[in-house]
Amino acid sequence: MNISSKNRCFLVTCMLVVFLLGALSIDCLCQTRAKTHIDIPDIPGYITMKCDFHMHTVFSDGSVWPQIRAEEAWRQGLDAFSITDHIEYQPHKDDVITNHYKPYEIARPAAEALQVLIIPGGEITRSEPIGHHNAIFLTDINALDTPDSTIAIRNAAEQGGFVFWNHPGWKQPDGKAVWFPIQSEIYDQGWLHGIEVVNGASYYPNAHAWCLEKKLTMMCSSDVHGPINLDYDIYNGQHRPMTLVFVKRKTENELKKALFDRRTAVYYNNILIGEEKYLEPLFNASVEILNPKIVIEGNSRVVVQISNTSDVSYELVADGETEGISIPNSLTLHAHKTVRCTIRRTSETLSGTKRIRMKYKVTNLLVAPEEGLSVELPLRITFVR
Amino acid sequence: MNISSKNRCFLVTCMLVVFLLGALSIDCLCQTRAKTHIDIPDIPGYITMKCDFHMHTVFSDGSVWPQIRAEEAWRQGLDAFSITDHIEYQPHKDDVITNHYKPYEIARPAAEALQVLIIPGGEITRSEPIGHHNAIFLTDINALDTPDSTIAIRNAAEQGGFVFWNHPGWKQPDGKAVWFPIQSEIYDQGWLHGIEVVNGASYYPNAHAWCLEKKLTMMCSSDVHGPINLDYDIYNGQHRPMTLVFVKRKTENELKKALFDRRTAVYYNNILIGEEKYLEPLFNASVEILNPKIVIEGNSRVVVQISNTSDVSYELVADGETEGISIPNSLTLHAHKTVRCTIRRTSETLSGTKRIRMKYKVTNLLVAPEEGLSVELPLRITFVR
Amino acid sequence: MNISSKNRCFLVTCMLVVFLLGALSIDCLCQTRAKTHIDIPDIPGYITMKCDFHMHTVFSDGSVWPQIRAEEAWRQGLDAFSITDHIEYQPHKDDVITNHYKPYEIARPAAEALQVLIIPGGEITRSEPIGHHNAIFLTDINALDTPDSTIAIRNAAEQGGFVFWNHPGWKQPDGKAVWFPIQSEIYDQGWLHGIEVVNGASYYPNAHAWCLEKKLTMMCSSDVHGPINLDYDIYNGQHRPMTLVFVKRKTENELKKALFDRRTAVYYNNILIGEEKYLEPLFNASVEILNPKIVIEGNSRVVVQISNTSDVSYELVADGETEGISIPNSLTLHAHKTVRCTIRRTSETLSGTKRIRMKYKVTNLLVAPEEGLSVELPLRITFVR
Amino acid sequence: MNISSKNRCFLVTCMLVVFLLGALSIDCLCQTRAKTHIDIPDIPGYITMKCDFHMHTVFSDGSVWPQIRAEEAWRQGLDAFSITDHIEYQPHKDDVITNHYKPYEIARPAAEALQVLIIPGGEITRSEPIGHHNAIFLTDINALDTPDSTIAIRNAAEQGGFVFWNHPGWKQPDGKAVWFPIQSEIYDQGWLHGIEVVNGASYYPNAHAWCLEKKLTMMCSSDVHGPINLDYDIYNGQHRPMTLVFVKRKTENELKKALFDRRTAVYYNNILIGEEKYLEPLFNASVEILNPKIVIEGNSRVVVQISNTSDVSYELVADGETEGISIPNSLTLHAHKTVRCTIRRTSETLSGTKRIRMKYKVTNLLVAPEEGLSVELPLRITFVR
Repeated sequence: MNISSKNRCFLVTCMLVVFLLGALSIDCLCQTRAKTHIDIPDIPGYITMKCDFHMHTVFSDGSVWPQIRAEEAWRQGLDAFSITDHIEYQPHKDDVITNHYKPYEIARPAAEALQVLIIPGGEITRSEPIGHHNAIFLTDINALDTPDSTIAIRNAAEQGGFVFWNHPGWKQPDGKAVWFPIQSEIYDQGWLHGIEVVNGASYYPNAHAWCLEKKLTMMCSSDVHGPINLDYDIYNGQHRPMTLVFVKRKTENELKKALFDRRTAVYYNNILIGEEKYLEPLFNASVEILNPKIVIEGNSRVVVQISNTSDVSYELVADGETEGISIPNSLTLHAHKTVRCTIRRTSETLSGTKRIRMKYKVTNLLVAPEEGLSVELPLRITFVR
Repeated sequence: MNISSKNRCFLVTCMLVVFLLGALSIDCLCQTRAKTHIDIPDIPGYITMKCDFHMHTVFSDGSVWPQIRAEEAWRQGLDAFSITDHIEYQPHKDDVITNHYKPYEIARPAAEALQVLIIPGGEITRSEPIGHHNAIFLTDINALDTPDSTIAIRNAAEQGGFVFWNHPGWKQPDGKAVWFPIQSEIYDQGWLHGIEVVNGASYYPNAHAWCLEKKLTMMCSSDVHGPINLDYDIYNGQHRPMTLVFVKRKTENELKKALFDRRTAVYYNNILIGEEKYLEPLFNASVEILNPKIVIEGNSRVVVQISNTSDVSYELVADGETEGISIPNSLTLHAHKTVRCTIRRTSETLSGTKRIRMKYKVTNLLVAPEEGLSVELPLRITFVR
Repeated sequence: MNISSKNRCFLVTCMLVVFLLGALSIDCLCQTRAKTHIDIPDIPGYITMKCDFHMHTVFSDGSVWPQIRAEEAWRQGLDAFSITDHIEYQPHKDDVITNHYKPYEIARPAAEALQVLIIPGGEITRSEPIGHHNAIFLTDINALDTPDSTIAIRNAAEQGGFVFWNHPGWKQPDGKAVWFPIQSEIYDQGWLHGIEVVNGASYYPNAHAWCLEKKLTMMCSSDVHGPINLDYDIYNGQHRPMTLVFVKRKTENELKKALFDRRTAVYYNNILIGEEKYLEPLFNASVEILNPKIVIEGNSRVVVQISNTSDVSYELVADGETEGISIPNSLTLHAHKTVRCTIRRTSETLSGTKRIRMKYKVTNLLVAPEEGLSVELPLRITFVR
Repeated sequence: MNISSKNRCFLVTCMLVVFLLGALSIDCLCQTRAKTHIDIPDIPGYITMKCDFHMHTVFSDGSVWPQIRAEEAWRQGLDAFSITDHIEYQPHKDDVITNHYKPYEIARPAAEALQVLIIPGGEITRSEPIGHHNAIFLTDINALDTPDSTIAIRNAAEQGGFVFWNHPGWKQPDGKAVWFPIQSEIYDQGWLHGIEVVNGASYYPNAHAWCLEKKLTMMCSSDVHGPINLDYDIYNGQHRPMTLVFVKRKTENELKKALFDRRTAVYYNNILIGEEKYLEPLFNASVEILNPKIVIEGNSRVVVQISNTSDVSYELVADGETEGISIPNSLTLHAHKTVRCTIRRTSETLSGTKRIRMKYKVTNLLVAPEEGLSVELPLRITFVR
């Protein structure tokens, strides 16, 4: 049948529409109100929690009521979040009564109902060079409200809080992070546990390197002040910057333990930053060659299909020669897609079945500043004359 | 930090862009060229193959070269397809030389390279009342090219072909399928194995009922003539009409066996049509209550979270009372989302832990014309005073 | 050239990427931060203002800081808005100090900088049957904060305020609007000027009819409480419910005058509601037949192309016979697209050049409850034998 | 009203759905079948035609029937196109009978019905160094089917054909275009009129420079072989590469005249390439400062709003200092959006009203290889102490 028959189409559709009417009409749960999962896989031995530990509300200089942070976290697939209103900076104080506990107290029932973990926290907001620090897992937020900056950080650390340095390049020349003596002072005392390698749209390569050298935890935060959808186009696949935390179980205690144990990765835009021991299993849990057993007859080209079930589109560039076969110089493994590439033999003398690994660098998985993760995609090729 | 610092942002982004440059620039595999998976799950005991057994090329009245059908099938996540050019109708014959084998021969190497099954077939195209029939799994296509309509169908069936009646309401009053004596004749001989319950945009409720009564296989086809993206907005989530076939293994033989064994479901728009024994496990493999163990204290409302990992957005309407609790009258379980609803007790006398099933009809899963699938979502509720 | 040449592609793209780098990297103005225009055209004699006069902030039961309402209004292409926090209902009052002027005072500088009109207002929030009323263009908001409901409304009206009844079916049986004696009382005094025909997701056909009968202004409001992107998928083409106001100039005075003069239309989802004198010119300013001069030779089919430059997809159904030609039974004039349909002669005797009007009802432009706007699409057809 | 009332919502939606049913159900014109306009404006004195003069069908090595090219052209908003099947290369010739006129003859009725201009053409396909040339506006296509390459091109030129060199870097080292002596030979005879500066995904900066030096017409072609939606994600805003032609009237004659007169620009991805005399008016017809009259009091920041009504997102970088005010270093003027930026005074001594021009380079409007268009955005600023 080539030309569609309108009459038939009409009747049939009518029937179905009438039948479906009940369901369609009552539904008040539109798609914007659903939860979108973040497809970053778990890795062997760990569950991958998606977390944002830096955000504000009307109780400091933010512009949403605390409950909204729980709602946003749920819809965007976060497992845990922390409201960290400025302890010292309250520009709305003529209208909103200062109370360091209120954001947590207001947001907690909403978070609990939605089964998202909420971690009590606050932002110690001092001038450079000491700068801003978030402290989370606090039991006494008011202890941070003290004149001396160093004492405030000590008080946070001594109550078991996890303390991390925020946006370390802010207000520095060219936005580049600088490690001042005051940072050494805090660090040497053991009061500093992490640094924001990414805050909002900003990546700090220096901070990235310091986390590796000084054994600090890599953090990634939105630092969102307004409604988050004003900053990120969530319904078109954008996501907020977040810290991935690799935990044994999804509990507050295990989350805290993992943070102190430096089991994190940074996830912002289409980039992951972290240690090889976390990024490699994340890649491997996302990517699969669908036809790893291949037969190459003579000089024919053969199609290799590679699937990627994660939200991250991996950008690969060939890392040196792959023995025996020619592979693409570059490959994009699109999120939630299968891509194909063609390979063929480069050596005339090969025969029999060989295990061959296609060697690539993943340029958007950073194991150090400007250094992509090395990966190998395994094939088992039978060469036939 | 409230206001983003442009300088910092600049440097940092520059570094990353330069670093990523290699990968981005060489990539010639844009997203349109990748394969999109159809997320309809397998069911216990069977793999769910996605198939379209009715389409055309320039070798009859279609407008693409046969290879394109393989490429389209791969990109759209099909597991198997059949080119079924009209045996008798060749409007391009002044330019394209008639050859019933050519579409299959041209498309097969492409299909094999992409690991999509291609099934040889053809469309026996006669006037009403006998109408059009597809025959697939043919070994001798030319045997269909014979003047007598009934003989053509017999020849298809006798070579082991699977024969199904196409768009049974075409050219009938109001587009409604009519079972003429000639259909009984073919059916009684055992030469008719299935009917298109859906062809393109048309659903035939009569044909749906006949498949149930007469034990015929439910088929769903695109019957596409032009490039398929001219008919469906594939990159925005539309899909072609297709037959789901529940197979033991993804082979041509097992596929054929499953078709003769009537193990199929119809999938078009956001609607699935089939027997309860297939639709129920499809629903259950897609949908999960994330927090099935619930505590209701007094008259409080409790949030239930329901995830759906499939491509189908299930439309639910309450099917009678659910004992002890009030549930939403309707629910849309959006594709690839988690939705939430609130429940609360309706009976003051309930106490202790009860297994309670939320009863719904899924209005877009049709087990018979105008009859939705009944489902039960299980909860284990502890009622506390 | 059939197969893309990767090497060439590589070099060339590299050059361009490097060249474009400066621009791309510094840009911190992402697309979510831009303003999206609402393409509803002006009509002869009037500018069409897009307005939302009903929304909340943390100063009553909303959950955003007032400035956010200005930012949201700008980004979504509104020309004017009003924050109408509840006068009597302040659930956040333990934390946010009650002050009826504050929402306006905080939002005004942001609105002015963005050149969006902000109109002072408040919501008089009383129990049914009197229900809720918005009053806008107020000079003394505190005058609404008085125990007697009727006095509050009188005080709003007497200071020149524009008073409209909100969500008139709320808490009524089946959500259907009911006109109680108290409404007559207010109306007879001249204190009631409009009614929300639409509030959020709810349309009140009764209210629609009353506006026509009683010469009240049709209003349409979001009544948004949280960040608006949590309710509407703005970046995928959804828009908030809004009142279109037909003004002589875009000033506060002219806006007020137009509201009292009942020059409005309701715009929600893909539906417009209003008087024919406004909907017809809106349709005509959106829709154009691109080839109105047509020649029909014999019984040939001719393509007519119809463009629609507005955001509304118009749904047309044929309204009786069109003399001399057959036209489609229905047509969707998709927003920002051109669609085509085919026509042909129905009368053998026609000859020469005729002015023929294709008669349709636009089912999503409502001139009364369940009554679509009648339109005529003009053609000038020359019939040739 | 804070919580939506489901009952009300139900009834109301039911009524509307039933009312709208007629329209929705009969519509067989889905959005994919509509025409999407290309919003590139006309410029003073000229209409901007969108054209693609290089594409293939099954009659050479393409894979669609010629009619499809007309359908694709119409849906994608093209004004004119040319099918240019290879004269010498017919890989489908065992099945498709060679006939150089057939593609045009088959596609023409469809193109005419849709009111898209179709220009007869062919591709003279010879080995390098002469390479491939398209010839359009042909009256005798067969004259191109002659053994000698130079004679073929002469024959095309001498019948009034417009001849352009295709993908001039194909098969050259690094994909870089090379001007061989044979090109001079053709050029010196006046037989070469244009060059593809862009073909598919490839940009040839050399060819760009030659067009400027040698007064050749800049061409941009898709060179599409398969269904175009397999290469471009049309429904998500991608477009094929195309030649913009600036004509006096939309006729075949005027189009031809404009091509010989070099009135073209190249449009691919988000990039325009052409002479300043065309790119500048295109930019100016797209972009408008909505509030050009500005008052700056003291050191306050003032918002400037800039709208862009075209499909191109313009990428601007500041081009030197702007006298008296600080402006953003970079700006993206997003397609179909209004963006805002803030300016403030840099000079303390300024007073009174001044005409100030914000100076930018538009990095994605190329007037020469690696040279962006210079633009000035005019403001009239009143400086107040």
